[in-house]
Amino acid sequence: MLLKLCLLFTWMASGTEVALEDLSAALVAEITGEKLISQFDHLATHSDCSRPGVTRLVFSERDVEARDVIKKWMREAGLSVREDVMGNTFGRWEGSDSTAGIVMTGSHSDTVVLGGPYDGALGTLGAIAAVGALQKLGFKPVKSIEAIMFTTEEASRFSIPCLGSQGMTGFLEPEVLDTFKDENGTSFVEAANAVGYSAKTAQEYADKALLKNPGDIAAFVELHIEQGPALEAEGKDIGIVEAIMAPSLVRIKFTGKGGHGGGMPMSYRNDPSLAASELALRIEEAALATGAAETVATVGLWDQQPNIYNAVPRSVLLDIDIRDSDKARRDGVIKKTLDAAEEIAEKRKCGHTKELKFEYPVATCDEKVLNAIQTAADLVGAKSKRMISRAYHDAAFMAQIAPTAMIFVPSKNGLSHHPDEHTAPKDLARGVQVLALTIAQLSGPSSAAVSDKSEL
Amino acid sequence: MLLKLCLLFTWMASGTEVALEDLSAALVAEITGEKLISQFDHLATHSDCSRPGVTRLVFSERDVEARDVIKKWMREAGLSVREDVMGNTFGRWEGSDSTAGIVMTGSHSDTVVLGGPYDGALGTLGAIAAVGALQKLGFKPVKSIEAIMFTTEEASRFSIPCLGSQGMTGFLEPEVLDTFKDENGTSFVEAANAVGYSAKTAQEYADKALLKNPGDIAAFVELHIEQGPALEAEGKDIGIVEAIMAPSLVRIKFTGKGGHGGGMPMSYRNDPSLAASELALRIEEAALATGAAETVATVGLWDQQPNIYNAVPRSVLLDIDIRDSDKARRDGVIKKTLDAAEEIAEKRKCGHTKELKFEYPVATCDEKVLNAIQTAADLVGAKSKRMISRAYHDAAFMAQIAPTAMIFVPSKNGLSHHPDEHTAPKDLARGVQVLALTIAQLSGPSSAAVSDKSEL
Repeated sequence: MLLKLCLLFTWMASGTEVALEDLSAALVAEITGEKLISQFDHLATHSDCSRPGVTRLVFSERDVEARDVIKKWMREAGLSVREDVMGNTFGRWEGSDSTAGIVMTGSHSDTVVLGGPYDGALGTLGAIAAVGALQKLGFKPVKSIEAIMFTTEEASRFSIPCLGSQGMTGFLEPEVLDTFKDENGTSFVEAANAVGYSAKTAQEYADKALLKNPGDIAAFVELHIEQGPALEAEGKDIGIVEAIMAPSLVRIKFTGKGGHGGGMPMSYRNDPSLAASELALRIEEAALATGAAETVATVGLWDQQPNIYNAVPRSVLLDIDIRDSDKARRDGVIKKTLDAAEEIAEKRKCGHTKELKFEYPVATCDEKVLNAIQTAADLVGAKSKRMISRAYHDAAFMAQIAPTAMIFVPSKNGLSHHPDEHTAPKDLARGVQVLALTIAQLSGPSSAAVSDKSEL
Repeated sequence: MLLKLCLLFTWMASGTEVALEDLSAALVAEITGEKLISQFDHLATHSDCSRPGVTRLVFSERDVEARDVIKKWMREAGLSVREDVMGNTFGRWEGSDSTAGIVMTGSHSDTVVLGGPYDGALGTLGAIAAVGALQKLGFKPVKSIEAIMFTTEEASRFSIPCLGSQGMTGFLEPEVLDTFKDENGTSFVEAANAVGYSAKTAQEYADKALLKNPGDIAAFVELHIEQGPALEAEGKDIGIVEAIMAPSLVRIKFTGKGGHGGGMPMSYRNDPSLAASELALRIEEAALATGAAETVATVGLWDQQPNIYNAVPRSVLLDIDIRDSDKARRDGVIKKTLDAAEEIAEKRKCGHTKELKFEYPVATCDEKVLNAIQTAADLVGAKSKRMISRAYHDAAFMAQIAPTAMIFVPSKNGLSHHPDEHTAPKDLARGVQVLALTIAQLSGPSSAAVSDKSEL
C-alpha cells in the first residue's frame, strides 16, 4: 500500500515529471560500490596507523587533511561550502524555494584509535555522493539540501562524543571544552586554535556554534554502518532506525596503597585492580539481569598505575559505557554500578571516586522521515527492518531539534571501532542509493508518502 | 656469647689494634642520617618525574647522569673505578693481601617508573658511604673491598630484572637482550650502544660480562630497604636476610572480537577484559589458598586494547608476578593460574596465550655472612630479626656464585615502587653502619665470629 502511494510521487527533471521509481532505477545505476570504494580508500590514507585500521583524531594533522579532501569533494559536487566556529562543515545545494527549509544529511569524519574506514565516513562521503548523483540525474530540489560533516563525533581525543552536534543543538556545556583534555593535556579550545579555528574561549565556541534558526531544518538523515550484528544476522540490507539508545559514561577510580609485588604480603594489600575486577563482573551481571537485549554495559577503559608486573597497583581508573533504549532501565544499571563500587571499595578497604560523566537522552525518530526511508528502501529492492541504534550518533542530538531518522547498512560480524570493520561495497552503495532517494523525497514536491511537507 | 666472641676481633688502624666495638662506636658517630640524606636527595634529582617520585630507567639520559655522579662519588671515596661491558660499575679498595679475595657490596641505581629514592640507591650509595667511613677511620682491609652498582636490576625498561647481575653470574640468556624491547621497541643492545657501551651483540654482552674468577668473591653483601611491612610492624631496625624468594613472571593474553560498546549486544560478546577480571580474582584465591604468608601473586600489568570507553576490548595482556620462599608452592600457584586462564578462555570463548617469562631460583644466604651482619647489628645496638626477602635482588644471583647475605632496613608502611617510599634518616644511617661493620669483619683479620676467612 505504501509503495503504491509512493509511485504517485513525482519530481521535476529538466522540466519533466518523472516517477519516483524511475529516479530509483537511475540512482541504482549511478551509485555503485566501485565508485564509492575508491573514495573511502583515499580518505583512509589520511590516518595515523597503517591499514586496515584508521586513526584520525579531531584536529590532528590527518584530520585537517581529511577535512580539506571533504571540502574539495563537496565543491566538486557543486555544493557551496561553509564552516562554523567548531569546524562543522556544510555543503549547500540551494533549493528552488529558499523559504522551504533545509534537508540536512551527513555524519562525521573523525575515528577512534585503530578504527575502521566506514564509521562516520559512510554518512559523510555518502551525503556528497547522494547529492552528486541527484545533480547528475537533473534532480531539482524544492527545499535546499545540505551535506554536513560534524566535528568530533568520536570521544577518542576529548573523552566526550558529538561535540560538534552538541554545539549546533544547544546541548554543549562550554566547560567540557576546557575540562576534558586529550592525552597530552591539550583542551578542545587549544587544539582548535592550533589548527586555525579562531574562537578563543569555550563560551565563544558554544555561543557561535548554536544554530540560529534550528526550525529551518525540515529533516535530518544520517547514513551509518550498523556497528552491530543484527542486519547481517537477519539477512537484511537496510536498517531504518526509529530510536537511538541513551548512552552514559560512568568513571570509577579505585585506589590502594600499592607496594612491591614481592614485598607486600597478600594480607596487607588493598589492591585496586582486584576491586576493579570484581566491579567489572558485577557490571556484566547487572546488564544481563535486565533481560533486555538492548541493555549493554562495557568497561572500555582500564587505566592501571603504575602498571608494571612487580608493583601492586596503586590505582585503577575505569570508564564504563552503559546504554539502553529505555532510560529507566539504563539508570537502574548505573545505580547498581555505583552501589557495587562502593560496596567493593569498602570490602577491600580501597579508596574510590565515582563520577557520572554524561547521560544523554534517548532519541526518538520522526515517522515521516522513517516513511521516506522505507519508501526508498522498498524502491531500490532492499530488505529492510525497523530497528534501534545501539550506538550513539550526531543524529541523536539533531533529533532533539529537527525531524530525524537514520539509515543503517550491515557491519560484517557486527564489528566497528576496529581495524576489521567492514561493509561490502554493494551494501555501501545500497545505503547511499536509499539516502539519495530519501532526501529526494524530503526535498522535492509533496507526495503521498511525505504528504505534509510543512512539517518536514 | 656471640657478642662476647666478637669483642676479641681486632683491626689495624694506624698500626694499632682496636677492638671491633670501638670501630662500631666510631662508625655510628661518623655515619649519620644528615650526611646521607643530602646524597639521596641529590641522586633523586636525576629523574624523569617530579619529587617525591623518582623515575630513572636504565640508559636513559637521567640514568647516565646518575652513573656519572656515582662514579664521581666512588672516586671521591678513594676507590678506583672500572665498568664492565654491561655498565656494571665497580669501585675497588685494594686490600693488604691481593690474593685473599674480594668482599663486594652494592646494589642498583635504576628505578621503576614513579618509584622512590631508596630502592637500590640505599645499597649503592650506602656501599660508598660505608667504605668512605672505614677509610676515614683508618681501617686497613686485608681482602680487597669492591663497591658495585649493578646495571638494571629493575625490569621497568626491558621487562626482565637483574640483567647486570645475571650477566656477571652466568644466568643471562643472551637472546633476552634482543627479545625484550622497551616501550619504543628498543632492545638492550641498542639502548646500551646508544649511550656508548660498545659490545655489538647480545652474545658479546653475555660473554664479556661473565665474571672470569667468581671464586675470588669471598663475600657479597647487599643493603636494601625492606619493601615490605614486617620490620616496621615488629619494631625492628635491621633485617638479616637468610633467603630470597623465588620470583616468576607469567604473561597471559586474552583476545576477543571487540566491537562497538553500544552496538554489540552482551550475548554476542567475548570480552577479554571480563576474562582477565575473572582470572585476577582466581589468582588472588590461589595465592591465599596456600595459607603461607610467603606466597604472593600480583597482576601488576594490565594492558587493555583499544582502551576507550565505548569499545568492547579486543585484547587484555596481563603480567603476573608470582613468588614464594618455597619453589614447589610457587609452582603450584603458577599451575593454577595457567589452568584457570585456559578454563576461563574456554568458558568465555576468548582466545588466549600463556607464557612463563621467567622463573628464578630461591637464594639461600651464607651463615658466616649472616653471622657477621648479626654481630654488626648487635654492636650498633640495632634490634634485628632474621627474615626472608620477598622482593628479588641482584644478591639472589650473586648468592648462586658467592657467600651472600642481605641487610634490610624498614620501609614506612611497607611501601616501595611508589613515590611515597620512605625510610627514616636514622634507619638509613643504621643500615650503612651495619654494612660498614659487616664488611670490616669480612675483609679484616679473622675473628671468632668470622673464623674461617679462607671460606669467605
